[in-house]
Amino acid sequence: MTAPSFFPRPHRRRLAPRIGTAALLILAAALAAAGRYPHQTASPIAIRYLEAAEALRTSGLRTELAYKLLARLTAAGPRLTGSSGAAAAVELTRAMMSELGFETWLEPIMVQHWVRGAESAAVVRPAGAGLSSLRITALGNSVPTPDAGLSAPVVEIRSFDDLQARGAALKGKIVFFNVPMDPRPMDTFQGYGTAVPYRSRGASEAAREGAIAVLVRSVTLRTDDSPHAGMVAYDPALPRIPAAAVSTRDADSLSALLAQGTPVEVKLILGCRELGPTPSANVVGQIRGVEKPDEIVLVGGHLDSWDLGTGAHDDGAGCVQAIEALRLIRDLDPKPRRTVRAVMFMNEEFGASGGRDYAADLRRAGERHIAALESDRGAFLPVGFGLGGTAEQFARIRRWAELLLAPSGILWVRPGGGGADVGPLAASGTVLMAFVPDSQKYFDVHHSGLDVLTSVHPRELELGAIVMAIMAYVTAQEGI
Amino acid sequence: MTAPSFFPRPHRRRLAPRIGTAALLILAAALAAAGRYPHQTASPIAIRYLEAAEALRTSGLRTELAYKLLARLTAAGPRLTGSSGAAAAVELTRAMMSELGFETWLEPIMVQHWVRGAESAAVVRPAGAGLSSLRITALGNSVPTPDAGLSAPVVEIRSFDDLQARGAALKGKIVFFNVPMDPRPMDTFQGYGTAVPYRSRGASEAAREGAIAVLVRSVTLRTDDSPHAGMVAYDPALPRIPAAAVSTRDADSLSALLAQGTPVEVKLILGCRELGPTPSANVVGQIRGVEKPDEIVLVGGHLDSWDLGTGAHDDGAGCVQAIEALRLIRDLDPKPRRTVRAVMFMNEEFGASGGRDYAADLRRAGERHIAALESDRGAFLPVGFGLGGTAEQFARIRRWAELLLAPSGILWVRPGGGGADVGPLAASGTVLMAFVPDSQKYFDVHHSGLDVLTSVHPRELELGAIVMAIMAYVTAQEGI
Repeated sequence: MTAPSFFPRPHRRRLAPRIGTAALLILAAALAAAGRYPHQTASPIAIRYLEAAEALRTSGLRTELAYKLLARLTAAGPRLTGSSGAAAAVELTRAMMSELGFETWLEPIMVQHWVRGAESAAVVRPAGAGLSSLRITALGNSVPTPDAGLSAPVVEIRSFDDLQARGAALKGKIVFFNVPMDPRPMDTFQGYGTAVPYRSRGASEAAREGAIAVLVRSVTLRTDDSPHAGMVAYDPALPRIPAAAVSTRDADSLSALLAQGTPVEVKLILGCRELGPTPSANVVGQIRGVEKPDEIVLVGGHLDSWDLGTGAHDDGAGCVQAIEALRLIRDLDPKPRRTVRAVMFMNEEFGASGGRDYAADLRRAGERHIAALESDRGAFLPVGFGLGGTAEQFARIRRWAELLLAPSGILWVRPGGGGADVGPLAASGTVLMAFVPDSQKYFDVHHSGLDVLTSVHPRELELGAIVMAIMAYVTAQEGI
Repeated sequence: MTAPSFFPRPHRRRLAPRIGTAALLILAAALAAAGRYPHQTASPIAIRYLEAAEALRTSGLRTELAYKLLARLTAAGPRLTGSSGAAAAVELTRAMMSELGFETWLEPIMVQHWVRGAESAAVVRPAGAGLSSLRITALGNSVPTPDAGLSAPVVEIRSFDDLQARGAALKGKIVFFNVPMDPRPMDTFQGYGTAVPYRSRGASEAAREGAIAVLVRSVTLRTDDSPHAGMVAYDPALPRIPAAAVSTRDADSLSALLAQGTPVEVKLILGCRELGPTPSANVVGQIRGVEKPDEIVLVGGHLDSWDLGTGAHDDGAGCVQAIEALRLIRDLDPKPRRTVRAVMFMNEEFGASGGRDYAADLRRAGERHIAALESDRGAFLPVGFGLGGTAEQFARIRRWAELLLAPSGILWVRPGGGGADVGPLAASGTVLMAFVPDSQKYFDVHHSGLDVLTSVHPRELELGAIVMAIMAYVTAQEGI
């Protein structure tokens, strides 16, 4: 069908060859009068940069460069912390930024290097149960089973209360945490938040009761065959037992089998190993500011990924969006007042050491990071923007940000910025920011073999880069 | 990664077993005080229905029934107007609604029945050009070529001005309209709007200059191998010449070949035929209102689709969202004050006669449609809501709609409701409404073989149904 457009004039105007400043002033006044942007009534910054924001968006949607960069990055394979894939991605993203003419360097760090080995799980009792090959994957950081595997009766657990109630009955058993994500919250991170403790803490909680291994239902809202990885965190005071995620479909099948009441025994083999500290690096690229080069606006994501897919959303997207944000800014204005820097942080998934090491690096001594913007929630449609800083900084930035970001799909700016990688910068007064895309589909692919390029849409990915470019550019010009 | 939630309390509250009315009142006051919903400061309706809106959303996201209905509908194949597939879909959607306990009936109408035949296109000169099988598809309503096809030199045209400038040089030629969608507008319907006249009017404009057929670049932002169909409208004063869409990738290849400067001749075969008027029907289901049964709130989409995919987005989505909206309302309140009706309109794609016939049907004599809400922009993430009516009605409805829809992702309510199917009801004073999902991906699949179930996401589809249910239910209870 063909329908009328519901978007107001700023969008329609995009087809015009050039937008007059007078028209924009009238538009801003009209929008303010209509009450659509209640916080914008007196923001000269917003009016000053309407045209720049429009140019950044137009340039991005026309070229879709972020997607081309992501295709190149994901074609090089997964980037598990410490792996050769991660090392290759360090060189590759540095090369991408050098090719674009940015100043680049590496900041060496040491990282953990855990590797997945052979892994399998099978129902061995009752015979003929049809679950001879459960789709599982070791959780990151898991200890291995003995080489020959381990076999034990399985007990299904629905909550930590449930676990404690079983107590001694779990001794020598494999605990099967079968706690689905809650589908009801619109923000799927809420459903994730309630389910994920079973993945991260379940092994130690089960070990406390004498269990010898755990299987954890994958944390996704979809019923499918892909196990979703993630970290297991061991309590140092308790035995470390092997931990694996099982696909939601197989979790349902296993649960149905257990519901029949006959004892179910599973044989689990996990060949994963920790190889010890390995050299790696954070990757940095920048456009030096001409007026205040030591004041820095950082945009970034993390370069490491899980090994099951190619980390297209998590967080290849954040990396290429950061690079593309710099490219968009450079094409608009090759001489920003302050330095705009893209950082690909290493090792977010195995403890976020890259972000900590970046903040603590001696190179930071002569620098002042005024703002740090993280993209690590997937490459989906932009919906919001999180903003830290003092109440005053928040209010000041929101006044221009809401109006400038709205035409790119951002319709709210709320308190709460940053993320695991830029978080450590907050201690030195950096205003943290976070790009927030829609979350409906994120956990479909998150930490699984489904997190590949085909799950990313070029325009959605690019809109994130555009939003980041607008925020970074205006901040670089106007300060905090 | 795991990140904090940026969503305000109404979302977080969803995890609580039940929300107290007092808490909602406090919340609404807080939101109003914060200026987040400037139009809501004095809407008792919004406060009265916060809990109902929450219940509708929770029920929808938990069950995802819309997707199950769409899986059933698309499994039955494409639904081109007049086809046996369309006839089967009439019975199927009526059965779905009967199974859900709604009152159902069919409203017979007559429709056009155009059928696609064998179709092919090949570059026959220069020999060895490598384009021996262009990916094309006849535009709907196109006349056929002679059985043996037609061959002629191809002339590439970039605009209607360009067409007129060539004038007599086009006599006997195949005109190749190669006008890409403009990728720059955030609202892709704008890029569609500027490209689609070449598809709808190009054949007659070319015939005016003596051309014997047209090839039209598919109207999509992606470079791929899927031709996208759509209607061709013939000027009755001009010769009717065959018209076909060509995939964007092949359009690029053909353009590159023409750019080499040697004459290019294409052989085109289109075996499509018009079979004449065929009986069909609009499908109606309803929950009768207990206080004012003759006052009707209509929700609907169109049941016919193009024949290349299975019309999952266009507009199977609108149909199942309408059915699911009634189901959600029924589960919340089986006795709404006014009648809530779902209509699956037939024949939107070949002239929107279903909508006109529905409005003109004698059954309408004793009825008063107070509002009619159309979903026909795909099943993507809800972003906005279009609203018609008088200025007073618009203002009154927006005051409650903005607050009630925001937690389901709708962050703007703007003037402009309806669509091709509910439009004819406006003449009798019906307030038209339109559900507006995000448009970034719609034209990727629109009218092509890519418009199939796998391109629809269960949560995004369901959120549309939820938004429709909230609007329809509150309107049924409170009137306009």
